[in-house]
Amino acid sequence: MKQLTAQQIVEKVGGKLIGDPNTVINGASSLETAKQNQISFLGDKKYIDKLEGSQAGLILITAELQEEINEGYNLVVCDNVDVAFSEILLVFAPEPIRYAPGIHPSAVVDSSVSIGQNVYVGANAVIEANATIGDNTSIGASSFVGQEVQIGQANQIAPNVTIMHRCIIGHQNIIHSGVVIGADGFGFVPTPQGLVKVAQTGIVQIDNDVEIGANTTIDRARFEKTWIKSNVKIDDQVMIGHNVEIGESTVVVAQVGIAGSAKIGRGVMLAAKVGVNGHITVGDGVKVAATSNIHKSVDAGKTVLGTPAEEQRAFMYRYSLPKKVKRLTAKLDELKKELQELKNK
Amino acid sequence: MKQLTAQQIVEKVGGKLIGDPNTVINGASSLETAKQNQISFLGDKKYIDKLEGSQAGLILITAELQEEINEGYNLVVCDNVDVAFSEILLVFAPEPIRYAPGIHPSAVVDSSVSIGQNVYVGANAVIEANATIGDNTSIGASSFVGQEVQIGQANQIAPNVTIMHRCIIGHQNIIHSGVVIGADGFGFVPTPQGLVKVAQTGIVQIDNDVEIGANTTIDRARFEKTWIKSNVKIDDQVMIGHNVEIGESTVVVAQVGIAGSAKIGRGVMLAAKVGVNGHITVGDGVKVAATSNIHKSVDAGKTVLGTPAEEQRAFMYRYSLPKKVKRLTAKLDELKKELQELKNK
Amino acid sequence: MKQLTAQQIVEKVGGKLIGDPNTVINGASSLETAKQNQISFLGDKKYIDKLEGSQAGLILITAELQEEINEGYNLVVCDNVDVAFSEILLVFAPEPIRYAPGIHPSAVVDSSVSIGQNVYVGANAVIEANATIGDNTSIGASSFVGQEVQIGQANQIAPNVTIMHRCIIGHQNIIHSGVVIGADGFGFVPTPQGLVKVAQTGIVQIDNDVEIGANTTIDRARFEKTWIKSNVKIDDQVMIGHNVEIGESTVVVAQVGIAGSAKIGRGVMLAAKVGVNGHITVGDGVKVAATSNIHKSVDAGKTVLGTPAEEQRAFMYRYSLPKKVKRLTAKLDELKKELQELKNK
Repeated sequence: MKQLTAQQIVEKVGGKLIGDPNTVINGASSLETAKQNQISFLGDKKYIDKLEGSQAGLILITAELQEEINEGYNLVVCDNVDVAFSEILLVFAPEPIRYAPGIHPSAVVDSSVSIGQNVYVGANAVIEANATIGDNTSIGASSFVGQEVQIGQANQIAPNVTIMHRCIIGHQNIIHSGVVIGADGFGFVPTPQGLVKVAQTGIVQIDNDVEIGANTTIDRARFEKTWIKSNVKIDDQVMIGHNVEIGESTVVVAQVGIAGSAKIGRGVMLAAKVGVNGHITVGDGVKVAATSNIHKSVDAGKTVLGTPAEEQRAFMYRYSLPKKVKRLTAKLDELKKELQELKNK
Repeated sequence: MKQLTAQQIVEKVGGKLIGDPNTVINGASSLETAKQNQISFLGDKKYIDKLEGSQAGLILITAELQEEINEGYNLVVCDNVDVAFSEILLVFAPEPIRYAPGIHPSAVVDSSVSIGQNVYVGANAVIEANATIGDNTSIGASSFVGQEVQIGQANQIAPNVTIMHRCIIGHQNIIHSGVVIGADGFGFVPTPQGLVKVAQTGIVQIDNDVEIGANTTIDRARFEKTWIKSNVKIDDQVMIGHNVEIGESTVVVAQVGIAGSAKIGRGVMLAAKVGVNGHITVGDGVKVAATSNIHKSVDAGKTVLGTPAEEQRAFMYRYSLPKKVKRLTAKLDELKKELQELKNK
Repeated sequence: MKQLTAQQIVEKVGGKLIGDPNTVINGASSLETAKQNQISFLGDKKYIDKLEGSQAGLILITAELQEEINEGYNLVVCDNVDVAFSEILLVFAPEPIRYAPGIHPSAVVDSSVSIGQNVYVGANAVIEANATIGDNTSIGASSFVGQEVQIGQANQIAPNVTIMHRCIIGHQNIIHSGVVIGADGFGFVPTPQGLVKVAQTGIVQIDNDVEIGANTTIDRARFEKTWIKSNVKIDDQVMIGHNVEIGESTVVVAQVGIAGSAKIGRGVMLAAKVGVNGHITVGDGVKVAATSNIHKSVDAGKTVLGTPAEEQRAFMYRYSLPKKVKRLTAKLDELKKELQELKNK
């Protein structure tokens, strides 16, 4: 079993050790579940009450929070608790699963496919004609890469992923199982003969350092491309319609849906289950609370919430309507009484 | 064609027969669509008006509802109408599909995999190194079982399922197609260099007698485990984040999303499309109405609804605000008039 | 590079050309991104402000909108801008991907399967015993077709689709990747021994000309069938419960959920993320706004919105409550002042 002393840990992650440098740590856990030989972390004031009663032998903490707590804990005061905890987690975690480069004999790879150096292709994967796979990329078992797809370097594509024809995947992307990239966008024209399918002739382009969660779907464009720019982080079961654009470093949490041709800026945060209507623009740095629905464009930097989404102040007014109505009712009854008394005189 | 008399049916499911014991039944359907030789059921007062005009030759009914309806129907009065109807359905249903034990020659099973007795592995399934598969478990065609996964006994795993490395599946679980167990949890730390991925070093553990609906995703833990306890029933397209815990016999309906580190108690009912914020606790026996969003912890036994969720009484007050505001407006106008009259005097 | 003159385009799509017939067009794009040699379109007044500054060399436009805009654009005035633009898109789009008929040698097709003329079965697809595949149908790579499934003619089934045993697929349907048809419906009966699974003995039937988006799930019926009628168009990540019926030409947008036994009429529009409760009826032609939840039956022809959904007028009243309450508060304060003045006299 791997173990580190508190002293070794502070040397590894940086920061200031408060407490016994010889404390032995052999695992990591949350404040509630950590045992005496485990390290834990407190990075958010919200969880400060979980400190009391924690068995953790060592706790990573911010300078700010350290000032608020009692003595008696072994602490490492550090700048970025999350980063430090992640680093320690990796020490105690089991070895990561790695796949040696090579193409599994059961994979079906068309002879026209261009394959780079150190590529892994898992069992029963299918790679169709004229696709290209860059160096150090791995394609998981049973995944499908369609005709003329271009995949760059050092991508990690999990098992059972589907990437349809002609889509373009850049470098260092992580794509989880069940993801479908490049299915047709949803478009129909009502005609006297019924709903006629609108051809979806474009592609999906994923730039670099993007992560895409399990069972997310990103539809191909009606024309040109649906475009996920670099450093975008997408959670599970997100639905991204045709011709959507998402700017750099935007975070899209689980079960969000973004309708066709919406443009999402850089550094936006769409929390879980948010809906974005089609053809609208969400400015850079916008934050949208979970389950909100954005029905019209939002200016850069705004925080919005609710369905339909509005700014915080308007939302809070709306949210507090029951209180306001109760107060109004009481005031009105009072007034009625006063008026009656006046009349009686 | 299989057929049973009403007498044979009441002997099979228990209960009291009212009507002709010789009625011949050869199928089962709903009250609206059942024909004269079909059996149907009425288990909920809500649907009592569907009885009139029903052609059903025999109807399973509760004692309570039987007292409310007219004469003239062939009835079997029984305790649990749903259970009885299910039993009869199985009589008339086509033979269930069964797979003879054996490993399809096209499956790719690593030589280090430990396989129990009477295991079925479908065509093109992939089972990686050091996985273990318990007795009587079936793994559907094209499913993926990653390295060091442990799967217990008598599980039914459908085609196109993905179970990532090191996850643990207990006994008698049913996992439907498209399910992804053990994709990375969603975690990023903002740093001056941009969003840095938080390593997801834990696993998913599914205990026993759990059912998981199509295309549901259950993410692996950042550390330790995401944990689905025994008898939990999960519908399609549910998203369960990293380090979530779900207690015994909880029911999670379609398209629910549960954010990271939330703890859901025993016997909870999360209706369709509910959202649960991260790091909160939902107590035992809590009921949450469809499409509600739970943003803070909920005490055991409560029923909550709305977005954000509140208790029924508060929700109903909020829901009836339009009526209340109309009434207030009318009262205010009345008061204004009275005041004006008083002034005029 | 393919190119057409404006004259050739108007001959192709019909309509009236306003401007230079010799303008050369070699591509198609949106108003914002089109270059001088590209055609674009304006079909909706909402986007009329995107015309200004557009570089597009030729613009498809309706007669109505043409009257509202300035001169100086090359225009084709046509009846159905969407249909015309789709036609032109196909001229400039890369050749569609086509698969030559034939069964890939890596596909696992049971010897009892009946296969029509000109059928394509992709690499590593699995087709189980007694399935039938009609003429001109293509089954994508790694897709699964279960025992006794019946698939008609000219269906396009993408890679990584799952169609479970005994389901019936008609003709000319398009089924995208990750779709799961025929997983078990979600049903459990509470008993003293815990939650007991309700057998799901029915099937899913898809009629003709249906499109089903990526990662959508359609559950099999408890008995008889879950039924998607002809010309229904379903987007990505839609969840359709057991025994649901959807009428002809209904449109179901992404992430909608329809609970068990709901009946949706013909020509209904369920916008994105709508929820429909179980056992209710949504009449023909009903329109439901995005993210609404329908908790009770809706009469034919209605437009409803909100959660729970209500008619537009009621919704707008509710939506404008903050304004109304502000006004009431001001009026009440005014009245109070007047009353005070009266008292003072």
